[in-house]
Amino acid sequence: MMELTVDLGARSYPIYIGQGIIDNIGAFFEKHGLGKNSPHLVVTDEHVAEHHLPRVLGLLGEAGYKVSPYTVNAGEKSKSLAVLEDVVGVALDAGLDRKSSIIALGGGVVGDLAGFVAASYMRGIRFVQIPTTILAHDSSVGGKVAVNHPKAKNIIGAFHQPEMVLYDTSTLQTLPPRDVRAGLSEMIKHGLIWDSEFTAWCEDNADKLVGLDPEALQYGLYQGCKVKSIVVSQDEKENDLRAILNLGHTIGHALEAVAGYNELVHGEAISIGMVGAAKLAVQLGYSEDIYTVTKRILQKFGLPTRCPEHLDTDRIMEAMMHDKKFSGGNMVYIVPTAIGKVEIRKDVKPEWVRNIVEQLKRED
Amino acid sequence: MMELTVDLGARSYPIYIGQGIIDNIGAFFEKHGLGKNSPHLVVTDEHVAEHHLPRVLGLLGEAGYKVSPYTVNAGEKSKSLAVLEDVVGVALDAGLDRKSSIIALGGGVVGDLAGFVAASYMRGIRFVQIPTTILAHDSSVGGKVAVNHPKAKNIIGAFHQPEMVLYDTSTLQTLPPRDVRAGLSEMIKHGLIWDSEFTAWCEDNADKLVGLDPEALQYGLYQGCKVKSIVVSQDEKENDLRAILNLGHTIGHALEAVAGYNELVHGEAISIGMVGAAKLAVQLGYSEDIYTVTKRILQKFGLPTRCPEHLDTDRIMEAMMHDKKFSGGNMVYIVPTAIGKVEIRKDVKPEWVRNIVEQLKRED
Repeated sequence: MMELTVDLGARSYPIYIGQGIIDNIGAFFEKHGLGKNSPHLVVTDEHVAEHHLPRVLGLLGEAGYKVSPYTVNAGEKSKSLAVLEDVVGVALDAGLDRKSSIIALGGGVVGDLAGFVAASYMRGIRFVQIPTTILAHDSSVGGKVAVNHPKAKNIIGAFHQPEMVLYDTSTLQTLPPRDVRAGLSEMIKHGLIWDSEFTAWCEDNADKLVGLDPEALQYGLYQGCKVKSIVVSQDEKENDLRAILNLGHTIGHALEAVAGYNELVHGEAISIGMVGAAKLAVQLGYSEDIYTVTKRILQKFGLPTRCPEHLDTDRIMEAMMHDKKFSGGNMVYIVPTAIGKVEIRKDVKPEWVRNIVEQLKRED
Repeated sequence: MMELTVDLGARSYPIYIGQGIIDNIGAFFEKHGLGKNSPHLVVTDEHVAEHHLPRVLGLLGEAGYKVSPYTVNAGEKSKSLAVLEDVVGVALDAGLDRKSSIIALGGGVVGDLAGFVAASYMRGIRFVQIPTTILAHDSSVGGKVAVNHPKAKNIIGAFHQPEMVLYDTSTLQTLPPRDVRAGLSEMIKHGLIWDSEFTAWCEDNADKLVGLDPEALQYGLYQGCKVKSIVVSQDEKENDLRAILNLGHTIGHALEAVAGYNELVHGEAISIGMVGAAKLAVQLGYSEDIYTVTKRILQKFGLPTRCPEHLDTDRIMEAMMHDKKFSGGNMVYIVPTAIGKVEIRKDVKPEWVRNIVEQLKRED
């Protein structure tokens, strides 16, 4: 098992990463002083529940904890105020008090929803994360939790740091191959923005990671969480530095929005977005290697590097303009200056980006 | 004008109190660096809107601010997730971004709702409070914001400190007499828990306060806010000391719940609750004066000191047991030990309280 501390002063918390660590969940709860007199609530989704809920409930029950389950439908639609109201009703019926905790067992949707319940129930109770996807290594660091509004994603939320994160790599073994690759896309991003050595390690271990080798996953998730935690520690409330985590996301979010559900999942869209950012770097005068290496690594992971040709460039540009990262009229763009280094550019002209989107449709 | 700082480290903020200070609202916004490039949203209720909304919108517009209004129905029902979703939709349509603010123009309901919008919109934007009731001097200090769930009041919320509070005593001139007295009940409470001199001043100035004399109101609100801010500064997240603010509230909340809407408003219920707490003090061996003085002051303000006889004692006791201050099985009670001093007792037996409720029905 590896352990990492996300350093946020009084709100610091550990991430435990390892094969089979859920078996010791009772001991982790005891170590963190979670109360046996107050009830707790596990929030999960229907798919994760099938694989892991009985185990988690059973182990916590054996350890003497009172725990109720709440299962949502899988997918983004569960991140709504209506579901929030329903979870809170169940929490009230179960008698959750200020010493209770909300346990998120699942991926990003479950983490975001359960985290916002924990942030707002009685004005904030403790929150434990048990991520069951690779992508969640990203969302489990930094405390950003939220639900959606019919008019905007993640617009109602909070910064609420968990008590601890239990990352059991054995829960990843049942992930569909497409989700594995897409999750690894964020891991590669963490290398590209901060750590050239880790980027090289990712490239060398692409096959092991895609094949879900437990040792490789443990190390890769540890390093990915570490980069994110360094960035978040320096900018908890997303004022400046934290923007670098958006490498590939400006184009990526726009592609996701235009392509619609299932043609491109998040990790695939940002893979294409990272190639776009690398092309922009070259155009701004940085080394051609940035583009070559970025693309080569992503392809080694079987991730897409080409924008689907049928997506309309006008609509992509429009989606980008609506993105909240463009507030105040300035276009904010994360540009690599070398492998493992990026800068925040506020002078990027929309024409340049349009040109790059066009080029991305012609990539091999 | 008087100015008070609520001391909460990086989250400290000023409360400005004075007659007609809204006239300078543009200058206050400029002083606090609220942006003219980002739109702002005023949340108010239908009654307050009639008296004060055009003035606030007009003055901010003249000062160069882009401000939209959002008006809710008066009353507790507006503190719901459905209204929250609606406000957020309006905020999105108006283009509010991370540099925008939510302005609460109204009493406790508007402050709680607007404050939770500010706490959760884009994970937290700035919040300005313009209280228009006397009772709101209590809720405008401490940052507790929330909406209700069908099963429980104030259960979904946050601690979100305002940027500033603009307390214009001229807005209080249109308050109904009953709301004036009920609001002053919390002011008296702030004297009773912390400051015997202020308690004496309240008694001497009862007629002026009830008559809405601007000088007396300014000083009384200043002192009331000051006591609360000292307590909150020492215990922002309501771990221990902050409980003393609940003097009179344990019995008071139960009476409110059983009496139902309009027979007893909040300030009246806690007036009776404070007499109950004073009786408990005497029973526990503290000076008889505590009871005599507490009751005399409340009566000078025309506040009730007797529990309506028809309220069922069993139901009152049951309501108290459901109150979240009783979590963990212990009955927590705030007991005065002298005028201007209280202690937190965790050893109060339900039988004693039942006996006091019975006595309260026979008070003169």
